[in-house]
Amino acid sequence: MHDTDPETGLMPQQNLLIGQLLFSPARYDPDQEIVYRDDLRFTYRELRARVQRLADGLAGLGVRPGDTVTVMDWDSHRYLECFFAVPMMGATLQTVNVRLSVDQILFTLTQTRPALLMVHPDFAEVVTALAEHIAFPCGIVMLPDDGPIDGAICYEPLLARASDRYDFPELPETTTATTFHTTGTTGQPKQVFYSHRQIVLHTLSLIATYATKTDQGRFDQSDVYMPITPMFHVHAWGVPFMATALGVKQVYPGRYEPDRLLALQQREGVTFSHCVPTILQMLLAAPGGADLTGWKIVVGGAVLTRSLAEQAQARGIDIFCGYGMSETCPLLLIAHVDTQSLPEGADDIGLRILAGRPAILTDVRIVDEAMQDVPADGVSRGELVARAPWLTRGYMNNPEASRALWQGGYLHTGDIATATPDRYVKIVDRLKDVIKTGGEWVSSVDVEDLLTRHASVTECAVIGVADAKWGERPLALIVANGAIDSAELSRHLQGFVDQGKLSRFAIPDRFIAVEALDRTSVGKIDKKRLREKYAAPK
Amino acid sequence: MHDTDPETGLMPQQNLLIGQLLFSPARYDPDQEIVYRDDLRFTYRELRARVQRLADGLAGLGVRPGDTVTVMDWDSHRYLECFFAVPMMGATLQTVNVRLSVDQILFTLTQTRPALLMVHPDFAEVVTALAEHIAFPCGIVMLPDDGPIDGAICYEPLLARASDRYDFPELPETTTATTFHTTGTTGQPKQVFYSHRQIVLHTLSLIATYATKTDQGRFDQSDVYMPITPMFHVHAWGVPFMATALGVKQVYPGRYEPDRLLALQQREGVTFSHCVPTILQMLLAAPGGADLTGWKIVVGGAVLTRSLAEQAQARGIDIFCGYGMSETCPLLLIAHVDTQSLPEGADDIGLRILAGRPAILTDVRIVDEAMQDVPADGVSRGELVARAPWLTRGYMNNPEASRALWQGGYLHTGDIATATPDRYVKIVDRLKDVIKTGGEWVSSVDVEDLLTRHASVTECAVIGVADAKWGERPLALIVANGAIDSAELSRHLQGFVDQGKLSRFAIPDRFIAVEALDRTSVGKIDKKRLREKYAAPK
Repeated sequence: MHDTDPETGLMPQQNLLIGQLLFSPARYDPDQEIVYRDDLRFTYRELRARVQRLADGLAGLGVRPGDTVTVMDWDSHRYLECFFAVPMMGATLQTVNVRLSVDQILFTLTQTRPALLMVHPDFAEVVTALAEHIAFPCGIVMLPDDGPIDGAICYEPLLARASDRYDFPELPETTTATTFHTTGTTGQPKQVFYSHRQIVLHTLSLIATYATKTDQGRFDQSDVYMPITPMFHVHAWGVPFMATALGVKQVYPGRYEPDRLLALQQREGVTFSHCVPTILQMLLAAPGGADLTGWKIVVGGAVLTRSLAEQAQARGIDIFCGYGMSETCPLLLIAHVDTQSLPEGADDIGLRILAGRPAILTDVRIVDEAMQDVPADGVSRGELVARAPWLTRGYMNNPEASRALWQGGYLHTGDIATATPDRYVKIVDRLKDVIKTGGEWVSSVDVEDLLTRHASVTECAVIGVADAKWGERPLALIVANGAIDSAELSRHLQGFVDQGKLSRFAIPDRFIAVEALDRTSVGKIDKKRLREKYAAPK
Repeated sequence: MHDTDPETGLMPQQNLLIGQLLFSPARYDPDQEIVYRDDLRFTYRELRARVQRLADGLAGLGVRPGDTVTVMDWDSHRYLECFFAVPMMGATLQTVNVRLSVDQILFTLTQTRPALLMVHPDFAEVVTALAEHIAFPCGIVMLPDDGPIDGAICYEPLLARASDRYDFPELPETTTATTFHTTGTTGQPKQVFYSHRQIVLHTLSLIATYATKTDQGRFDQSDVYMPITPMFHVHAWGVPFMATALGVKQVYPGRYEPDRLLALQQREGVTFSHCVPTILQMLLAAPGGADLTGWKIVVGGAVLTRSLAEQAQARGIDIFCGYGMSETCPLLLIAHVDTQSLPEGADDIGLRILAGRPAILTDVRIVDEAMQDVPADGVSRGELVARAPWLTRGYMNNPEASRALWQGGYLHTGDIATATPDRYVKIVDRLKDVIKTGGEWVSSVDVEDLLTRHASVTECAVIGVADAKWGERPLALIVANGAIDSAELSRHLQGFVDQGKLSRFAIPDRFIAVEALDRTSVGKIDKKRLREKYAAPK
């Protein structure tokens, strides 16, 4: 890799490797801190030494380039060390969603055949169940908060007896660095994977997207970072890589407990986090009501309601959304607001709760079924598709799903969206949930949102059912407090049609009262199941 | 390029292309302005259309992927358009140092064999001379400030009749995007070259290096950029690519005239520029003495003296240095100061005039002749060598020089440097000018600096001459105001030896009075010539 060409004398192109983010950061401050809960704090100098020791220790256990090392942990400094050490030694880091069932976890491990498992004691029972079906040739490493599993090696002793002068190999940049499984609502999990090159480019794009902002939602070398999206979920959105490359103070909270998260934020001066709306809700509802001014929080994973965003703002949080998915590493859109150039009276919070604007180097389009761009007029709907140098190249060992994902040369998000002329994207529905009726696309989410404004509706789901004349027609399933009055609900929706806020085709033909709505294993409304149940009219 | 693999269903990795910086920027503000002198202002929307038109126009003239398009211009919006359009169509942009002699320019064009020449009327005579020896199969395009050369096509009419819907090809990222010749002090110019991938990565590193700073020397989306290092000199240090990728206002000043530069800075609110010390000196000396607060200026290309830096600071300029060279694209080091964490009484300006700290993704080392790191103690000297994904892979058609450049797997800068523990690098001398005497490396620059502090010395050069006992010994050539007194100059230097500021081996054995010092074509002291002249002792 380091040799010039014998004929031309030219040096080959230099590879992009994750180790460069650790050893050649944007800011080198060896005394900067990494904090783990109330238990531990150490410096970047020690982080670099610990990453070396971890790699040396794993190599001593027999882990080789090309092997998979699987981790099951809460957010910790140990996980951060794995983020670097495992890929840097040429092995693949598999991050496991610890909330999956034993069967699902077993399924993912059967696909990756890990050489070694690193696991937090909280998951000891899962490991015992797994060990009946799967062997870990290089053993099991216990992350040492608690007592070990029989026969497992402990993490700190492993590091203590290893060398801090491990010689990391020069790898091809296309070497697979990380892998994990998507937790789709249906079917078996699908395996995505990311190369060194992709993670380095994703990190550079994150930096260029966040650091270049003048004020709102900025991330620079003075920030203090704490993840509140799990590190097993798309590398905590890739932010630990960005934080390390910027040399900022990082705070790892272990298992999420709202009181502890808030206490850590206050004590350590955390200024940048990311989470899903549910966690934000829990943080805001926690007793104490501390002033959270100066805390920037990016929200993703589900729609952030205006009301929740306003509550966060009232507490001083700089709240805004991002959009991505397991298949996109995940950066695609960030809802930054150019506060300095925002027109008088503009709806600042209305922009922050959108999916966002495209990150640098992304090619984000909203297209119809023929892959033609729909107008960026804030109204026209199409599927959100994207290209970027860091999107998963497909699903491992699944050519059919891979081809479907990349149909027409763009990654299909499966989300229906609109875009404004200044490139703010709004997600209106999942493609599979949108109701195609009489040539129009009706957003089930829109109709549900308007229905729940009626006092009698506690919860609802709107699905498309086959219709000979219209292709599909909307059907509303209502969890009501009391009886439902279909005519009254129709009139309620007609009011929004009259105001031009809803298409007249969007009013469901039928409203059916149900006890509860079917849900998936991760708690989302299972529209696939509902469509099956209500497929046959009458 | 857009097709999934027939067997695995996987998408190939996505290429890094310069067009992504233009069309997928970090901030998309189509109404943002590009300004050219007092003559023109237009928007990024128009910039994108003009880049399309230029590519379409050049294609119409017969320019094809793989062809070279050569530009000779002052800093202009047209040059910026060429920075994008030429590489994006798969051709190579050759930038010519317009200060070279006709013979040197002819030499560089004979190497690249351009398909087309784009030229400012100021260089019409040069072109006439060139045209006697070289043909431009696709013609000559006149940048239209003035009357055209006979038979030349004019730039604006070319764009006017072209389409703004040119279909840019999907290129391999290793496609050569730009090329130019280094203006070494000796020998024929050597040809460096940069790929799309390298320029995109260089731009991302520039952004990550500048934008992540908390205050000092920051560059973000609120800045206004004006180059004051020529665009033919290593792409104006790559900053036009960064500025475009950030969507900021850009001001192009044409040929540099201090009054005009200052007027543009004031009128357009320029906040970020870069230049060599000579230009800075001219700007500060220009009449008017306007307050320049808020203007960040990066200085490179030669040593910035403390005195000049202080003068700049007194005028309100945020002044700091950068280091790089034609072979490094050029980003390697930037002398940012972490003002927030600077210890009480620290020498802020002393840090700003250093070469700087390593940029993200660079592997910068200071090594002895066996390629072993010298201690980062601020004193130990060695050659500065580097790796980074954007360094030139060598010199085109020059295997011997390429191999020498990349000896031992690192690019050799030819500069002798020291580094502090916190990675601030200081350049002490050129490797070829350093005097190796009795096993010690004496910096000619250090001795020259101390000698010029003596009232009798106007200017001087210190060179090494062969010595049977010591290997080399320093010899001082003095331009004096009056006669020189060797004993007095020796005593003067001995004072610094006594203070521990100079090695006793550094005092020259001989001081020779000269009328003037030999200089190279670009005005630098020609130490090679001096060494030849004074090689034979006595």
